[in-house]
Amino acid sequence: MRVGSGLDIHRLVEGEKLILAGLEIPAEKGAVGHSDADVLSHAVIDALLGAVGAGDIGEHFPSGEEEYRDISSLILLERTAEILAGQGFEVINIDITLVLESPRINQHKETMKGNLAGKLSINKNRINIKATTSEDLGFIGRKAGIMAQAQVLVEQLEESSRGGD
Amino acid sequence: MRVGSGLDIHRLVEGEKLILAGLEIPAEKGAVGHSDADVLSHAVIDALLGAVGAGDIGEHFPSGEEEYRDISSLILLERTAEILAGQGFEVINIDITLVLESPRINQHKETMKGNLAGKLSINKNRINIKATTSEDLGFIGRKAGIMAQAQVLVEQLEESSRGGD
Amino acid sequence: MRVGSGLDIHRLVEGEKLILAGLEIPAEKGAVGHSDADVLSHAVIDALLGAVGAGDIGEHFPSGEEEYRDISSLILLERTAEILAGQGFEVINIDITLVLESPRINQHKETMKGNLAGKLSINKNRINIKATTSEDLGFIGRKAGIMAQAQVLVEQLEESSRGGD
Repeated sequence: MRVGSGLDIHRLVEGEKLILAGLEIPAEKGAVGHSDADVLSHAVIDALLGAVGAGDIGEHFPSGEEEYRDISSLILLERTAEILAGQGFEVINIDITLVLESPRINQHKETMKGNLAGKLSINKNRINIKATTSEDLGFIGRKAGIMAQAQVLVEQLEESSRGGD
Repeated sequence: MRVGSGLDIHRLVEGEKLILAGLEIPAEKGAVGHSDADVLSHAVIDALLGAVGAGDIGEHFPSGEEEYRDISSLILLERTAEILAGQGFEVINIDITLVLESPRINQHKETMKGNLAGKLSINKNRINIKATTSEDLGFIGRKAGIMAQAQVLVEQLEESSRGGD
Repeated sequence: MRVGSGLDIHRLVEGEKLILAGLEIPAEKGAVGHSDADVLSHAVIDALLGAVGAGDIGEHFPSGEEEYRDISSLILLERTAEILAGQGFEVINIDITLVLESPRINQHKETMKGNLAGKLSINKNRINIKATTSEDLGFIGRKAGIMAQAQVLVEQLEESSRGGD
């Protein structure tokens, strides 16, 4: 078993879409980024890569590259799942915390979990999404940004065919 | 086994109590919230709910409801323990980080751990509390807020009588 | 098995060194602290102490003490490894997230992992380092500070000779 964690921050501005776990959420402001700025999926990707010792999202999917401009982060999540599978790892569970001042995302959680679970080929009851606010404090409190953190537990079921160092 | 994590932020103002893990800590400022604003207990509750896929504290104990006004968060922690027990989960360990500029809380850690352990019916050596400052930076640094993060590891000893999704 | 997490924040100023995992990184600004202000090593130390229920870095290595002035945090990490070994714990894996606006640290990751692994007497493929920015937001975004978070999974292979509570 291995643990991993991911943290991602994006700026929020008017006129952009807010996409979380592949779902567009109706919101006053959206997130800015090279890809679709899906802060939740990015945190999950980083946590999964971190757990298996595979670096981080920036190494695998560099934000400067044309290939990743406006790409759906769910595609990057699917590629991350392939990296894990290639090393014989399976996901035990994922716990996500969104820190955003608004909107409330409770009603969207099931769809979001379903989106992630589909790309990871796991049951969505292995994924949990929580949300909290920054109580009007800091850049999240003034709605200038959004943060996501993810924790994962993974298990290596078979030895990797790739050598270690 | 499952991992979970919780993060909670509260504003600090003069004239309010600072309650951490059910203990009132002498402090220049206290935390504002609908309940007792016990940021440490809230992070633990969210981590436990997150580990077992049970959503978040806002879903179980909505902050707008009269029932939870000024309630001790230790009561909410006890109810959270019942949710875990109902699904056959036991707590392996909990590691908590408080981020606050002042006061120092070292002398209170044993009492705080005892309070949490009592409500969770576990030995207090399964709970760890750490504290750090924000080095005068950001809203925590200027004593406008306090943050707590919690990590938990839980184990399902018996199958839940409740179905999955 | 036990999980632990650590979080550390340091101020960045011109004219100071930026030391991460024992390595001096060429940078516009460096970190301020009583020791060498190695935010990454401090987060790892706190996560390890947290996992085994041994409090936090401030309790073991108080920042006010002359003994720790300008000390290499790798020495503190080595002492932390001794605490774990004394309780019969081994490190399964460590996943670290650096949040800093600049510089990029990708090219230094292998050296940094090697430094940590050496002090912990583990294979460096059990350590993962990720980096992300705060997207120009908050105190990290304006390069006034740097943050590191670490997650660890440890396993107790033999019973401690020291009693619990």
